[in-house]
Amino acid sequence: MNAPNRMAVSILLFGFTLAMASQAGAHPNLILTEAGVERIRAELGSVPLFDATVERIKAEVDAEIELGVDTPIPRDFSGGYTHERHKRNFLILQQAGALFQILEDEKYAIYVRDMLFQYEAMYKDLPLHPQERSYARGKLFWQCLNDSNWLVYVSQAYDAIHDWLSEEERLTLEQNLFRPFADFLSIENPQFFNRVHNHSTWGSAAVGMIGLVMEDEELVQRALYGIRDDGVGVGATDDDGGFIRVEGQRAGFLANLEEPFSPDGYYTEGPYYQRYAMYPFLVFAQSLHNVRPDLNIFQYKSGVLLKGVDALLQLSDADGEFFPLNDAQKGMSYHSRELVTAVDIAYLVGGQDPRLLSVAEEQGQVLLDDAGISVAAAIRDGRAQPFEKSSINLTDGPDGRQGGVAVLRQGDEDLTLVFKYAGQGLSHGHYDKLSFSLYEKGEEVLQDYGMARFVNIEQKGGGNYLTENTTWAKQTIAHNTLVQNETSHFEGRYEIGSEHHSELHFFDGSDSNVQVVSALETNAYPGTAMKRTMALIRNGSFEKPFLLDIFKVDSDSANRYDLPFYFMGQVMRVNFDYDSPSALRALGEANGYEHLHLEGTGSPAGSNTVLSWMENGKFYTLTSATGAGDELLFARIGANDPEFNLRRDAAFIIRRNGAADTVFATAVEPHGNYSPVSEIAVNANSGIAELSVVYDDERYTAVTIEDIQGQTSIFIVSNVDPSASTEHELEINGTTYEWSGPWRYAEI
Amino acid sequence: MNAPNRMAVSILLFGFTLAMASQAGAHPNLILTEAGVERIRAELGSVPLFDATVERIKAEVDAEIELGVDTPIPRDFSGGYTHERHKRNFLILQQAGALFQILEDEKYAIYVRDMLFQYEAMYKDLPLHPQERSYARGKLFWQCLNDSNWLVYVSQAYDAIHDWLSEEERLTLEQNLFRPFADFLSIENPQFFNRVHNHSTWGSAAVGMIGLVMEDEELVQRALYGIRDDGVGVGATDDDGGFIRVEGQRAGFLANLEEPFSPDGYYTEGPYYQRYAMYPFLVFAQSLHNVRPDLNIFQYKSGVLLKGVDALLQLSDADGEFFPLNDAQKGMSYHSRELVTAVDIAYLVGGQDPRLLSVAEEQGQVLLDDAGISVAAAIRDGRAQPFEKSSINLTDGPDGRQGGVAVLRQGDEDLTLVFKYAGQGLSHGHYDKLSFSLYEKGEEVLQDYGMARFVNIEQKGGGNYLTENTTWAKQTIAHNTLVQNETSHFEGRYEIGSEHHSELHFFDGSDSNVQVVSALETNAYPGTAMKRTMALIRNGSFEKPFLLDIFKVDSDSANRYDLPFYFMGQVMRVNFDYDSPSALRALGEANGYEHLHLEGTGSPAGSNTVLSWMENGKFYTLTSATGAGDELLFARIGANDPEFNLRRDAAFIIRRNGAADTVFATAVEPHGNYSPVSEIAVNANSGIAELSVVYDDERYTAVTIEDIQGQTSIFIVSNVDPSASTEHELEINGTTYEWSGPWRYAEI
Repeated sequence: MNAPNRMAVSILLFGFTLAMASQAGAHPNLILTEAGVERIRAELGSVPLFDATVERIKAEVDAEIELGVDTPIPRDFSGGYTHERHKRNFLILQQAGALFQILEDEKYAIYVRDMLFQYEAMYKDLPLHPQERSYARGKLFWQCLNDSNWLVYVSQAYDAIHDWLSEEERLTLEQNLFRPFADFLSIENPQFFNRVHNHSTWGSAAVGMIGLVMEDEELVQRALYGIRDDGVGVGATDDDGGFIRVEGQRAGFLANLEEPFSPDGYYTEGPYYQRYAMYPFLVFAQSLHNVRPDLNIFQYKSGVLLKGVDALLQLSDADGEFFPLNDAQKGMSYHSRELVTAVDIAYLVGGQDPRLLSVAEEQGQVLLDDAGISVAAAIRDGRAQPFEKSSINLTDGPDGRQGGVAVLRQGDEDLTLVFKYAGQGLSHGHYDKLSFSLYEKGEEVLQDYGMARFVNIEQKGGGNYLTENTTWAKQTIAHNTLVQNETSHFEGRYEIGSEHHSELHFFDGSDSNVQVVSALETNAYPGTAMKRTMALIRNGSFEKPFLLDIFKVDSDSANRYDLPFYFMGQVMRVNFDYDSPSALRALGEANGYEHLHLEGTGSPAGSNTVLSWMENGKFYTLTSATGAGDELLFARIGANDPEFNLRRDAAFIIRRNGAADTVFATAVEPHGNYSPVSEIAVNANSGIAELSVVYDDERYTAVTIEDIQGQTSIFIVSNVDPSASTEHELEINGTTYEWSGPWRYAEI
Repeated sequence: MNAPNRMAVSILLFGFTLAMASQAGAHPNLILTEAGVERIRAELGSVPLFDATVERIKAEVDAEIELGVDTPIPRDFSGGYTHERHKRNFLILQQAGALFQILEDEKYAIYVRDMLFQYEAMYKDLPLHPQERSYARGKLFWQCLNDSNWLVYVSQAYDAIHDWLSEEERLTLEQNLFRPFADFLSIENPQFFNRVHNHSTWGSAAVGMIGLVMEDEELVQRALYGIRDDGVGVGATDDDGGFIRVEGQRAGFLANLEEPFSPDGYYTEGPYYQRYAMYPFLVFAQSLHNVRPDLNIFQYKSGVLLKGVDALLQLSDADGEFFPLNDAQKGMSYHSRELVTAVDIAYLVGGQDPRLLSVAEEQGQVLLDDAGISVAAAIRDGRAQPFEKSSINLTDGPDGRQGGVAVLRQGDEDLTLVFKYAGQGLSHGHYDKLSFSLYEKGEEVLQDYGMARFVNIEQKGGGNYLTENTTWAKQTIAHNTLVQNETSHFEGRYEIGSEHHSELHFFDGSDSNVQVVSALETNAYPGTAMKRTMALIRNGSFEKPFLLDIFKVDSDSANRYDLPFYFMGQVMRVNFDYDSPSALRALGEANGYEHLHLEGTGSPAGSNTVLSWMENGKFYTLTSATGAGDELLFARIGANDPEFNLRRDAAFIIRRNGAADTVFATAVEPHGNYSPVSEIAVNANSGIAELSVVYDDERYTAVTIEDIQGQTSIFIVSNVDPSASTEHELEINGTTYEWSGPWRYAEI
């Protein structure tokens, strides 16, 4: 490795630090502070949520102390013994450190010290981890990412017992374990450390936090600003095919705060990875807030970190589970430990927002630190207020100009639409421009598949990404959006997708009865412009709000268009005939089509195609305006899936052949319910009699919906002018409509 | 219709009754009594559960009164408007009657009267229901069954306002509505009324209850003992293919109490239909108990009705959902209104069993009658005790000699085995001799499919049985039991199946660590004897209890045997290679095989075949002793199912070709867990290293299980002698085992 000027200076500083061993400032000072510890000790026993957390964690740590220290020679992938043991070790070390400060019982300090010295003895001669899959192999774990997790947690444990250790002990640990560990993660692995990615966020937090404890300014600077000349070329890629270096991109913690977050706090990889990155973002930020208040880290980029916490909470369903945008394992929620951290810290440093307290109550635990005691005490004092989620539009991109994600909510999350018109989302992004998912309360009505991976389950590909994540989950056909000529957006090529993003046409959540979002995508298929307008509509003629989806395509060539709907549940009724094949074959050979079995092929029976299904005791009906030439396909996920890596979920695909310009207009309508206990079916039939596209040109598209009582309503969208103040006048079938703003909904 | 002597007498009595109109006894006296009403009025406001039920039902009835009376001309199948409206009417009438008695508010009496007179005006000229599907078409509904439901409920409403009506009003209602209604259900439909079947239970309760209110002894006698000469021939069948008349069988309510219940209270159609029949059984019985105490109805057949309530509660999983034996819709539970009735009445007349109170608490509602007030008051007084379910063996058949159903439970329903070795179960029976299902708490580990029907959901075949119920759900291959030569038990023929039943070998639930049941079936396949021994074993080397399944087959011919396991969840790992077909085809052409898609075919890799899967965050592993010639099949339900009537659930099938005598020995082991929130997988791997059949002859079969720590245990079953006291001595591989009783489990 080249050693440029700055490196030479670093090496001088390094020697100096080693000779001293950190001792100047008072410890702990990262996320626990002396003042915080004082408050905790004073309040302990009178703060129910904090006390309960202490009890639970004490039981857990005591059980581990009972078991004894085990630091096995690294060997396994995630899910395997050595991986899980080292992972558990860092979690327990951090907790034991906190308990030492809170309970003043030396046994916890002794446990931390003994384990740290066992790591110290092992680390000196530890080779790279034997598993060779990663672009950045770690030592304790198969990838540097997990080694960084270790150091982020262990820094806190070291901070907690720092002043209790002798100077000699500190010197040994810092010289043989922490400094080499930090150097390994950074200067020895610049392809991991020196980029903009959740991996690097963990890396810089790891290096920075141990730097703060050790008062090693060189490590802190490296963490904040990255390594200047790292020798990594532009265009290199990681395991997931993500670019390690993009022209002109910076590195370090601040760059990772700058680049992937939009000004609204949306993290471009999506909420699942935002959740993962929030922990290092926030604990390192809180540490900087305490040790380096001059940096004003929580004001950075107009307070983007705190906005990020809010955005993340908003990107969850009624059960608190994150919407599975991009690579995301379903079921991850704001009950995760990362969100406990995020919510508690955001409460402490973000102006004591009382809505966060109700989330903390739901989480049922707090951090054992300054933030946790503040939250627990405020809950005890009755200050919690509901965290009411609303319809929101979150921009994507560092400057908020790379599309975004909109969430429309009707009622108390009775119906929630998640609409994605964002950028590529780095290496975890999917080719899913203008895709959406739909929820009734916490249940999926139309699903986003999520990722093809069983995180930390060793039996399934070592717990890592499965090949079907690339061949299926990322492909366009795996999403509720349009596929042209059976090819994924951007040909499924990351280097092309990364250069583009969709554009918001308009977002209007101001009318609680009709909420609308509309966005445009012109690059996914060169020569084809796609505009999707989605509205959640509450109309007194219908029992529940419904979704209206207007997907307008304009192309300079005739194409085959496939518009899939991944409905959850069992088919109740359709209004068309279809053939069922005697043998199930894959729908295609590539781009994800090879993973769909064709279960039925039909044609529209009339001007509308209707599909009803039932899931979890609720009925749903999709009504779409279709033409005689359309094909209607029933498909099921699971073809060419020899390892049973994919769920056998259903899809309904509207296929339109040889069309250039066309409109897909579809209503998705939740209605009624069924109980297997009472065996009573209520409102099991659709309330829609007819849905028609009554107008469509460059300027406007209009759809009418006639309900079964004979009432008709019309929805008109301006395809050109998103302005809220523009006055419009349009004649449709002899009636003149006048209105202002980009959309109009009215009874006619 | 012929009018034999007894009918002539009836007609005389009939005229007499009409002239009187019932008025002699004090009303109400069916399930509400004068004494009960007095108590309710006195305690009202101080009995929380009762008060809450009154509040809820009052709100419901008031809303209906607000809507006005609607008695539409009958037209629809179940799920359709007229069906659901008339169904709701009878439920509301019954409740309104009770509210009138409890609250003394005349508006409820007026509502009941007005609706009854609307029915009276309609009924006189009402033709048969226009839907022609039923073997016994009703008038208000498409089948007499639902008309009987109506009369059972409406009798109670009439009873409640009886004394409030004028004599003239009573006369009109009885003459034009109730008596013709009762005659229609009985003498005009003997094929419905005069048999042993849940239909006839409803019919006789309907006729009997209105007879009690009207003091029409002729109706009461007809209800209790049936119609003597009804002209229905032996061998006629109903819609489900069930026999209407079997040689020598009696009819009427008492015969329906005698025949389908075993002395243990098991109802031969299974718990789903027992639940359905319990309502008329118990409300008519309680009415008889009040009006005709001389009958001692609750002591009938050694108190079989109360035993039936206990049996039914025992036949539910940890969530209270009934095991779906025979035709059964999943999700039906002891929270249903029929079980509220059963539990409350059983408490009142069955010696105030305090365990029933905890079930009533879970139900969260009580009856608005004498039984309900007793239960609610006892709960208020703190008398509830837990209803702890245990391992039980319930005999089947009127004399308890037609096999049975065993339930083995480990811990607090941590692992529950349901083992069926019963009789055919009348027309709702499945061809599933020696089948089983397995539960962990309330979750299915290995499922019984249940039925192919969406009860009361009109879109799905009018809410009635679907053809797949016959072609799939009843077939042997749809169950976790052995299929010989791809043919169902008894050739899938009801007339053969009805003549046979399996035999218990032994049941031993006395050892909480090892619970065993063993049964024998020799008629399902002539020339083949099948003996299945199933044990739930708790062994300290394993995290959780596991199932050991020893299926021994002895045949006088070489056969193909298929042993399916309907595992719920996603495949995690197997230990053998298999091919995945490029196109999915049905596994066979008949006997249910036409509904399974073949997803993979493999061969054992060694002496054991291992399949692991995950469901609901829990891991399971099946380990089976297999031979080189065995085939291993992955299958999925849903072939030849053009209407999407079947769930796309998975099966794993062990196929053994050309075998005459053989043993299938299999362990099914729950272990570990996984949380998508913590992303931590705990104990994700099986604890079994090797499972072997180490001994097998006519007398004994022995299986050893070596765990991954190298400990080995042995399970020996005596194939011949079920006696608990017999002493056994057996040498296996040089070791001599001595024990007493039909099984032995030991560490070796």
